[in-house]
Amino acid sequence: MNSLIRNGKSVVSLVCVVLLVFGGSVHGRRLLSAADRPKPSNAPAFARWLVSQSSWGVLSTIAEDLGGAPFGNVVSFSDGLPEQGKGVPYFYLTSLDPTARYGSKDHRSSFTLSEEALGTCGKIDPEEPTCAKITLTGKLNKMDANSEEADTAKKALFAKHPDMKKWPKDHSFQVYKLDIEDIFMINFYGGPKPLTVDEYIHFEMNKVTKAII
Amino acid sequence: MNSLIRNGKSVVSLVCVVLLVFGGSVHGRRLLSAADRPKPSNAPAFARWLVSQSSWGVLSTIAEDLGGAPFGNVVSFSDGLPEQGKGVPYFYLTSLDPTARYGSKDHRSSFTLSEEALGTCGKIDPEEPTCAKITLTGKLNKMDANSEEADTAKKALFAKHPDMKKWPKDHSFQVYKLDIEDIFMINFYGGPKPLTVDEYIHFEMNKVTKAII
Repeated sequence: MNSLIRNGKSVVSLVCVVLLVFGGSVHGRRLLSAADRPKPSNAPAFARWLVSQSSWGVLSTIAEDLGGAPFGNVVSFSDGLPEQGKGVPYFYLTSLDPTARYGSKDHRSSFTLSEEALGTCGKIDPEEPTCAKITLTGKLNKMDANSEEADTAKKALFAKHPDMKKWPKDHSFQVYKLDIEDIFMINFYGGPKPLTVDEYIHFEMNKVTKAII
Repeated sequence: MNSLIRNGKSVVSLVCVVLLVFGGSVHGRRLLSAADRPKPSNAPAFARWLVSQSSWGVLSTIAEDLGGAPFGNVVSFSDGLPEQGKGVPYFYLTSLDPTARYGSKDHRSSFTLSEEALGTCGKIDPEEPTCAKITLTGKLNKMDANSEEADTAKKALFAKHPDMKKWPKDHSFQVYKLDIEDIFMINFYGGPKPLTVDEYIHFEMNKVTKAII
């Protein structure tokens, strides 16, 4: 068995290299190559890249039944249709889950992503500043199911997470949106990158997305 | 380039299978084989396995300077020395980072992990109940640097995250601990698994760890 594990480790090492060079496919997106990664100094491009390429993260809300504790929950998300991500995270949640219930009573929320989940940090420790992380803080709001934005958001969610189409109808999943008010991102040494919501939302992604999608 | 990407995808598919069969090594732990995974019905074993095998997660605190919003932050952690994890997460934080500052003023906190980060969910979507997730809610406390527990916790953190040994001395990193008060875990269909903190903390892991470490 030890020899099998050693063989496995060798194959995995080889594969990590292959992943960084060629990329692969997971949860409706291809794994990224290091070449896709914007320069850390370009904060808006880097933040939009990290959010658009990610498929899941931790959505935190206030747990009224746990003494008002901040309650993080793992969720899948999308910020738009393929190649059309706009940086605003959309979620597909059911009130059977505490996060949707908490968010409906207290909209204060944050959504946190690690570059570790993209596979582009390699062997860098997830808490090292060079393995990027971003926290979008704002208000979690349920969308009007009849709105055009909710319809587009649902298409975006289903495109990145095909399994969502099969989720139980009687669980009443609905589209939620995080209205961003603050951005905390560390993607290199030297502390959080200064980045306003306006710089983030209005950054023109076309050139970047053409390179990485 | 397309052919290269196709080749890459093929290799990655092959590798995903290899990973699930043999395992590899990342952040001081080997990637797990599906055979390592406790039965979802054994909630205490599953929760302790998920926490002990994970190397990073999202630590949420209350951001006083963001209107009291729940603020999630990516952190590395350890729950004990190799094969000796006790289920209590320890962190190595600096007050240069907002999470340590927030946690010092308001200890309410939660720590969230996804099985997706272990590589054992395969192609299952991270929001599917069968890709496990756990949220440990409680109080984040800075440990007495001179205590025996803090010394052991630091050794455990350095064992799983060797990079921590090299972190800047002038950043004054210190060991923090999450005192768990509530456990939320979903690892199969049917909603959160009933699991008390007592059942979680006092579960005897020896048999399980012998099988998975």
